Amino acid sequence: MDFSVSEQTQTLLARTQRFVDEELIPLEPEIQKGWWHIEPLLQAKREQVKKLGLWAPNLPQDIGGMGLPLIDLGLMFEVMGQTPIGNYVFGAQAPDAGNMEILHEFGSPEQQDSWLKPLAEGAIRSCFAMTEPQTAGSNPTLLTSRAVRDGDSWVINGHKWFTSCFDGAAFTIAMVVTDDDAERHQRASMIIVPLDIPGIEHVRNISIMGHAGEGYFSHAEIKFHDVRVPAENMLGEPGQGFLIAQKRLGPGRIHHCMRWLGICKRAQKLLCQQALGREVRNGERLADQQTIQNWIAENAAEIEAARCMTLKAAWTGDHYGWKAARTEIGMIKYHCAGILQRVVDRALQAHGSLGMTDDTPLAHWYSHERASRIYDGPDEVHKQKVAQQVLGSLA
Amino acid sequence: MDFSVSEQTQTLLARTQRFVDEELIPLEPEIQKGWWHIEPLLQAKREQVKKLGLWAPNLPQDIGGMGLPLIDLGLMFEVMGQTPIGNYVFGAQAPDAGNMEILHEFGSPEQQDSWLKPLAEGAIRSCFAMTEPQTAGSNPTLLTSRAVRDGDSWVINGHKWFTSCFDGAAFTIAMVVTDDDAERHQRASMIIVPLDIPGIEHVRNISIMGHAGEGYFSHAEIKFHDVRVPAENMLGEPGQGFLIAQKRLGPGRIHHCMRWLGICKRAQKLLCQQALGREVRNGERLADQQTIQNWIAENAAEIEAARCMTLKAAWTGDHYGWKAARTEIGMIKYHCAGILQRVVDRALQAHGSLGMTDDTPLAHWYSHERASRIYDGPDEVHKQKVAQQVLGSLA
Amino acid sequence: MDFSVSEQTQTLLARTQRFVDEELIPLEPEIQKGWWHIEPLLQAKREQVKKLGLWAPNLPQDIGGMGLPLIDLGLMFEVMGQTPIGNYVFGAQAPDAGNMEILHEFGSPEQQDSWLKPLAEGAIRSCFAMTEPQTAGSNPTLLTSRAVRDGDSWVINGHKWFTSCFDGAAFTIAMVVTDDDAERHQRASMIIVPLDIPGIEHVRNISIMGHAGEGYFSHAEIKFHDVRVPAENMLGEPGQGFLIAQKRLGPGRIHHCMRWLGICKRAQKLLCQQALGREVRNGERLADQQTIQNWIAENAAEIEAARCMTLKAAWTGDHYGWKAARTEIGMIKYHCAGILQRVVDRALQAHGSLGMTDDTPLAHWYSHERASRIYDGPDEVHKQKVAQQVLGSLA
Amino acid sequence: MDFSVSEQTQTLLARTQRFVDEELIPLEPEIQKGWWHIEPLLQAKREQVKKLGLWAPNLPQDIGGMGLPLIDLGLMFEVMGQTPIGNYVFGAQAPDAGNMEILHEFGSPEQQDSWLKPLAEGAIRSCFAMTEPQTAGSNPTLLTSRAVRDGDSWVINGHKWFTSCFDGAAFTIAMVVTDDDAERHQRASMIIVPLDIPGIEHVRNISIMGHAGEGYFSHAEIKFHDVRVPAENMLGEPGQGFLIAQKRLGPGRIHHCMRWLGICKRAQKLLCQQALGREVRNGERLADQQTIQNWIAENAAEIEAARCMTLKAAWTGDHYGWKAARTEIGMIKYHCAGILQRVVDRALQAHGSLGMTDDTPLAHWYSHERASRIYDGPDEVHKQKVAQQVLGSLA
Repeated sequence: MDFSVSEQTQTLLARTQRFVDEELIPLEPEIQKGWWHIEPLLQAKREQVKKLGLWAPNLPQDIGGMGLPLIDLGLMFEVMGQTPIGNYVFGAQAPDAGNMEILHEFGSPEQQDSWLKPLAEGAIRSCFAMTEPQTAGSNPTLLTSRAVRDGDSWVINGHKWFTSCFDGAAFTIAMVVTDDDAERHQRASMIIVPLDIPGIEHVRNISIMGHAGEGYFSHAEIKFHDVRVPAENMLGEPGQGFLIAQKRLGPGRIHHCMRWLGICKRAQKLLCQQALGREVRNGERLADQQTIQNWIAENAAEIEAARCMTLKAAWTGDHYGWKAARTEIGMIKYHCAGILQRVVDRALQAHGSLGMTDDTPLAHWYSHERASRIYDGPDEVHKQKVAQQVLGSLA
Repeated sequence: MDFSVSEQTQTLLARTQRFVDEELIPLEPEIQKGWWHIEPLLQAKREQVKKLGLWAPNLPQDIGGMGLPLIDLGLMFEVMGQTPIGNYVFGAQAPDAGNMEILHEFGSPEQQDSWLKPLAEGAIRSCFAMTEPQTAGSNPTLLTSRAVRDGDSWVINGHKWFTSCFDGAAFTIAMVVTDDDAERHQRASMIIVPLDIPGIEHVRNISIMGHAGEGYFSHAEIKFHDVRVPAENMLGEPGQGFLIAQKRLGPGRIHHCMRWLGICKRAQKLLCQQALGREVRNGERLADQQTIQNWIAENAAEIEAARCMTLKAAWTGDHYGWKAARTEIGMIKYHCAGILQRVVDRALQAHGSLGMTDDTPLAHWYSHERASRIYDGPDEVHKQKVAQQVLGSLA
Repeated sequence: MDFSVSEQTQTLLARTQRFVDEELIPLEPEIQKGWWHIEPLLQAKREQVKKLGLWAPNLPQDIGGMGLPLIDLGLMFEVMGQTPIGNYVFGAQAPDAGNMEILHEFGSPEQQDSWLKPLAEGAIRSCFAMTEPQTAGSNPTLLTSRAVRDGDSWVINGHKWFTSCFDGAAFTIAMVVTDDDAERHQRASMIIVPLDIPGIEHVRNISIMGHAGEGYFSHAEIKFHDVRVPAENMLGEPGQGFLIAQKRLGPGRIHHCMRWLGICKRAQKLLCQQALGREVRNGERLADQQTIQNWIAENAAEIEAARCMTLKAAWTGDHYGWKAARTEIGMIKYHCAGILQRVVDRALQAHGSLGMTDDTPLAHWYSHERASRIYDGPDEVHKQKVAQQVLGSLA
Repeated sequence: MDFSVSEQTQTLLARTQRFVDEELIPLEPEIQKGWWHIEPLLQAKREQVKKLGLWAPNLPQDIGGMGLPLIDLGLMFEVMGQTPIGNYVFGAQAPDAGNMEILHEFGSPEQQDSWLKPLAEGAIRSCFAMTEPQTAGSNPTLLTSRAVRDGDSWVINGHKWFTSCFDGAAFTIAMVVTDDDAERHQRASMIIVPLDIPGIEHVRNISIMGHAGEGYFSHAEIKFHDVRVPAENMLGEPGQGFLIAQKRLGPGRIHHCMRWLGICKRAQKLLCQQALGREVRNGERLADQQTIQNWIAENAAEIEAARCMTLKAAWTGDHYGWKAARTEIGMIKYHCAGILQRVVDRALQAHGSLGMTDDTPLAHWYSHERASRIYDGPDEVHKQKVAQQVLGSLA
């Protein structure tokens, strides 16, 4: 075993960290002003990132990315995750990152040319329409949205929500049933749907934790009414929807977890700074209080343990494939999400009323990253699967 | 011991519950549209409440309230707390409720006539300016805002935040230092400050959990620049600030806790309804899953235990006074706040992505009632005091 | 509602507390020397208790007990529970207490004369043979031990364990299947089995937490090999086994919970004494450390809340019957057991290595009362039932 | 980074695991019969171990050990830890292992010949007398036991407890004050004390968790009354006591943590086997219950994360020294101890009443490994130190 990080990677991470600290964290107060306000500011930062050679760490070099191995990429996500605007500025933001991965792996040359290329350049945004309001998201076999083949077209009808970042996106990839009679996991397909065509109803940006958001900072409820797209807009083969969705999730969970650990790192840093700077009485600082010390120590241990485990899961995936890594990836999903919630909660509490405000990013993470225990499968579903795998390995 | 509730009180609670269920819960989707939108709707409901004889359960009868004993009042707060708009509609909303209590106990006849009367009628709103951004709220001896006597006036300078509901209020009660040389707990006084006079700067409605809010739904940062009020605007005697603040807090904590338990009750109900209504697979409902059952059972026990304890604290306060009840009141503060957070968290998780949205009140409570572990003294401070009292009782 | 305790009851509790403090706690160091060593010492204390009129608080007056109402009895269990030898000395020890209850309610005059009378006088001990090693104790319909009618006798074969206090007992009440074909809950009966007759194999006192124990301090594994008892030894009617077992459990859970809360009270007292007496460095005591203060405050709140809830459950059972109280009784079982474990754990930790030793009763409670989350139905089963009742109450 | 384990190490671990499974686990039922009963059985196993070349994985090759690098050694501790008799049989048992380390590093040739050699061969046992009953073990500067130089001798007086394995040991290493006036951390020294000389009082084997134990399975309280040893029995230089104690603790904590993770692994395996084998009702097994699945999944994640982190701490210590690794080593101490307690608790609960018995090793671990949160410094002290280091790294 070897836990060392190469000097080259350390240099890369240090440069990225410096950019985050000097260029992005000072921009955070602008976030509250809304997406349309902050978007041009972020575009300018993206140009700087491109010049620094730090653009798209998650993409292969052939489409303009850095082509990092998985562990190094994980470490990059940890750095970018320290600010809510990090992933976007570096071109590694969900849901575009996942869409780019599957377009790269499953897209036809034409699809890649039309959709992957501008996405990888940061010229457009995209979204991913899978979750439905009426069915359990953890069970995709319950999907009700449908596409029917009509000549050279697919005609789509359906109802989706939590279509994140729909507002302002150029296209979505929609997961829809194309063959009701097929075997459970071959009923659905993925279809690329441009968003400037007839029949797409933007019902609303869903109000989440008190605010509907806008632009990239939003989660839409949408309906497809007889939306007609060319047959060649299908991604991969008919019936490959689940297969592609699974591909999208494996590395995605590593990225999420490393991003969460970046949030944890920042939250811990904010906690420590608040503890060192805040006088409680008679020259005694928060940092001198044992309860605060307990939180710092518990945070430190939980973060360190989860981080080692996540990097190991990345290593397993890299060396033995996602199937071999599936138990590890299931575990990091719920384990890291739980730690994220606890670490942010402790940091918020240490800030007192300031923690409730948007003067730090803690309130944003406390409220919006609550979703980490839900999206990409709730904790409870992952725990059941991991338990079955553990039990199965004994048999 | 006798845990029975009189038939008369049961009838009162049932009537209130019916009003909450039939008139207020259906209004909840309007909350997201903002205070200025919902205010007239709530005023109409207030008229209905007055006609039903349910107005101001927390006020003495001599100023138009119901004059309920403390335990019955607690039970009323539990019912009203089930919806975020409950307390306001019944005229028992913070911070007005606390202001009315201290105006009733410490106000001069003129002060009562000018400020208590319209407040008790629901004709105006008020706020309470105590917390400061630069000093630990848990230690009021660190206050920096000051009032200086100048002839027949007090001239106030200072910086406050978390002045809840300032936006649209007619007056505030400001806690300011009036005698730097006095003994620690006699340095500060409370002064009534109308908000339509010169020198009051509304710096901002603080953005909290992603949103600055407006009107009654807001928490202001404000500054006093040489604000001049008549000497007779002092509430009580000079130096009585802490004494009055303490009076304000005792029953206030009972009210908060019972309101929180009302939130818990509603969250548990939402959880159960979601569990019964949501199919997971093959006819199996969420309610059939053992994890969900565990949450329901843990919620039920934690709520029941906290409720019994809070009612006992109310009983102790009623029969033996707030000093005798101070350990019990300290305990319910952190104990109930912790349960509130856990119960709402479990209910949110059971709703999956729906729980993140404002289609239920869970996200609002999850984010905004996070403050329950902070306001009126953070958990950590209450725990220290309770521990000292417990240790002291052994000596 | 009224949380007051009558002066008469307060006097009774104070007298009992004094006896516990002055006569029983000083005996605790003898416990490690084993049952046969301590038994005569305890018998002497029993005589004192009888003279003080404190014998058998749990029994009706017609069989020599104090005939206390359920809440007062609960408060007595809380006092007695503060020492591991309390219940025995006051004649309220499991499993005899439960056996006396069912003999009183279901026993024939002859059974009462032969078994209840000497038990109530403390002249003999008894045990209760229900749990079996091969079947889930939480599901009594899986019982395999059987009694077959043969003329005027029942002939019993079976295998039991956790037959607590078998070693030295005069008789057991055995729960055995008497009619395989009956409806699930009418298959089993209870039979009184003297232990000096042929066919009873004492396989072992089970080694529990490192020690097999002896006498009253033991839990036996036993086998019945064609054990023949007269037909009139059946308690109640054939097929009434479950009915009687349920009767035994309702008040029994109140008693357990109040005894656990007595343990918690003592553990908290030991924690506080250790905290006040232990110097950590430079005159700083454990009691000055915030972590210790947190534990004291959390203990205090959890104990207080659980105590109020348990007394309410007792009140509900007293006024509305055990069926009405079943959800409350289910809740106190797992809620109080969890608190017991946490409170004892914190107290042990505060004692450092001393906490691991038998120089305090904490190690005994830590190890042996771990069973509280298991006996009389594990937490998990109670939670499922409570959840079903809560969900059912919505329908 | 590289998480792979060399083929050679994998082979070694597999051979060790096989020995544990086939030779040691079947011996576990003998443990309850006491040390003097089991000692000859274990000696026989030691001979087998020596023949297999698996003796003393923790010792350098020059004194007959395997000379493993720290990570490989950690992995060996994980395997040996799966049974309570593992470390002893492989010659890596506390406190001898620590004593051998310091004798190897600080002992004179004569000391090594007299004490290290027979210890390394398994011919004698030793103990370590540091903790005192009257002073906080976490603060060794409070030590009261003293050695005074008298001619060519040291004369020792003092009172120690938790001198583990004193009963039957050939010698102890005693930590005593030799210079009251020296700087705090140079007041104490370590002295080798043979146990067959006058003045050593064996007060008792302390009763721990209900049982005083015997032989290697015991923790003694002892007194030194004018115990006279030759001056050359001092280990290292006068005043080096703390320095040597620190050396003893660094790798020792890695070994403890890996041993605990071995316990966790076994507890998880027992849980899974019980879950798969136990029918609850109608063909439904424990393994089909979601609560049990949650426990398995939470165990799996917590164990995996803690394991990765502990191996990383070992790696850091190996490559950068113990000073560089001190924060990591502080963190694994409390983090792993907490996980150990939770994992064993869950496994015990899943076994129901069987979990309380000594028919599995779970009850032993539940009760005796409760000490893991106390020995070598309680959690609370480690957390304070880690917090200070984290805060310090920001400055």
